[in-house]
Amino acid sequence: MSEPRVAIVGATGAVGQVALQVLEERNFPVGGLRLCASERSVGQRISFRGRDYEVELATPQLFAECDLALISVSAAVSRDLAPMAVAQGCVVIDDSSAFRMQPNVPLVVPEVNAADVEAHEGILSIPNCSTTPMVMALWPIHRSNPARRIVADTYQSVSGTGKAAVAELRAQSTQALEGQRVFAEQYPHQIAFNVIPQVEGFLDDGYTNEERKMREETRKIMHAPAIAISATCVRVPVMVSHSEALHVEFERPVSPQDARALMDGFPGLTIVDDPAASAYPMPIDAQGRDEVYVGRIREDSSRSGALAMWVVSDNLRKGAATNAVQIAEELLRRGALLRSVAHGA
Amino acid sequence: MSEPRVAIVGATGAVGQVALQVLEERNFPVGGLRLCASERSVGQRISFRGRDYEVELATPQLFAECDLALISVSAAVSRDLAPMAVAQGCVVIDDSSAFRMQPNVPLVVPEVNAADVEAHEGILSIPNCSTTPMVMALWPIHRSNPARRIVADTYQSVSGTGKAAVAELRAQSTQALEGQRVFAEQYPHQIAFNVIPQVEGFLDDGYTNEERKMREETRKIMHAPAIAISATCVRVPVMVSHSEALHVEFERPVSPQDARALMDGFPGLTIVDDPAASAYPMPIDAQGRDEVYVGRIREDSSRSGALAMWVVSDNLRKGAATNAVQIAEELLRRGALLRSVAHGA
Repeated sequence: MSEPRVAIVGATGAVGQVALQVLEERNFPVGGLRLCASERSVGQRISFRGRDYEVELATPQLFAECDLALISVSAAVSRDLAPMAVAQGCVVIDDSSAFRMQPNVPLVVPEVNAADVEAHEGILSIPNCSTTPMVMALWPIHRSNPARRIVADTYQSVSGTGKAAVAELRAQSTQALEGQRVFAEQYPHQIAFNVIPQVEGFLDDGYTNEERKMREETRKIMHAPAIAISATCVRVPVMVSHSEALHVEFERPVSPQDARALMDGFPGLTIVDDPAASAYPMPIDAQGRDEVYVGRIREDSSRSGALAMWVVSDNLRKGAATNAVQIAEELLRRGALLRSVAHGA
Repeated sequence: MSEPRVAIVGATGAVGQVALQVLEERNFPVGGLRLCASERSVGQRISFRGRDYEVELATPQLFAECDLALISVSAAVSRDLAPMAVAQGCVVIDDSSAFRMQPNVPLVVPEVNAADVEAHEGILSIPNCSTTPMVMALWPIHRSNPARRIVADTYQSVSGTGKAAVAELRAQSTQALEGQRVFAEQYPHQIAFNVIPQVEGFLDDGYTNEERKMREETRKIMHAPAIAISATCVRVPVMVSHSEALHVEFERPVSPQDARALMDGFPGLTIVDDPAASAYPMPIDAQGRDEVYVGRIREDSSRSGALAMWVVSDNLRKGAATNAVQIAEELLRRGALLRSVAHGA
């Protein structure tokens, strides 16, 4: 099977649309394509490699006619659709948080833990879009000198919430600039010209679900259950790309020079770090790019031998669609795409 | 001297205009008022307590006719004008970074180190607008259980740069929303719908001058030269109010409950911390308020007994004008306004 039949579920959403672009750009072998979305988008036509496809509802019959499903919908909907697809013989690469922490579900950033894909039982998950850039930046150091403690504060764009949030940021910005009343639906508060220190719901310990994800997913991906992690996840009025300020302690001291040498040339990672030229990663530069960008690499002035750095990545690409397609490529390369077919599972 | 004659230098700027409001709101005793700004604003008329005042150039003669000068201009201009004012018998409260770290210049947040005002020799400085909220939030704990290490990542509004930057954020936002070319003058890059991990120039150690200020000023204000501090200062597309994610270790463990009990009722500090109701401090709520707001108080999940929290404050008010006027009130209360008059200093 060199040309898998692919279903994109959530094809009209922010990540689904980028997934189609990424499949084209990477010349992913597509033996057949089905585009799925919710009822209100059915019948819409979307172009892929010069051909128009009609949006359909995801059904068992549709999944039975596919080999691979890239699913990017809410966790609640994924919980229904992913098992449905697996039951019909599809391998699922799921973008939601529904399955990530399940022991039998590989959670994969291919540059970090590609081999984990082989253990899949039908579903593989991609990490949360704030976890992936952090793991990408730390792995080149961590793999030879384990990270012990990470403090991460994020600056997350509204496209992480979806297309409606992008539209809302645009609308609110105009409302605010024109002195009109500002309407908030996607977030509990106005996001235009504001920052909101809440991404997802709160847990009993005062952290948000997003902050918990950064902690637990990082440990799972790096196979490092003991790393201590504290994050503050903050929504900022940016359309695309998540940024993160990281402060990291490793088992042994790391100089900024060592860190740069270890990161330099690591696949998917680009260092942008020339303070004299005001060159550092920024959301508007990362948007539309597959790389994770790292800059402002310096010794943490609060802890000798620790590092501070700044990481930016397009949350729709490496944070979601690109990472999903990379996992599909890895499955193909390893002949692991059909292994799990478990009809009636 | 119960009614000092006051000069506001930088009266047409973002902080100067708020200083006039704050003097009115707090019924500060003003025995005479002179408003100073640069050449291009001379002749402009500004109203204070129902009377119009004409903007003048700051001259030795003008300072000789005043007792107190609130100066909010660039550090370079302060370096000229503050000594000029002191030479004419004025006490100067300076908003710039020009004198803050000089040993004979008190650097004061009145709620924290009011007594330091007494040691002035003519010039007193107010801290950088990202330092003050951090110190306000930490002092109620620190004074009985010293902070050992602080990691601070900031989300700073454009009004910290001045009125031109506020205008630029508005203009760029419209340009970006309408798909026009975006022009950047105030910052090295576009700030609308972007974040810039640079506030002020870079030092040799990879930190910015703003990040160094947060470190050095915090140590000076709290009389705690050994605190380890690492900051990443980031400009965000917000008009007014700076936000900060803090991660703090203290000499002895502190629970979130302890922290709240210590902060509760501390002058100038307001706790907004009800996650279930999505209640936490935000820039749009802090704007126009004198308080420093603290929320998201939780145990730092990367260090037992440490705290994570979120702090927001109007950078033009408690971060600048309000703090300056509070220092003036403290000088009056302590009879320390005329002490330093050193003609010809």
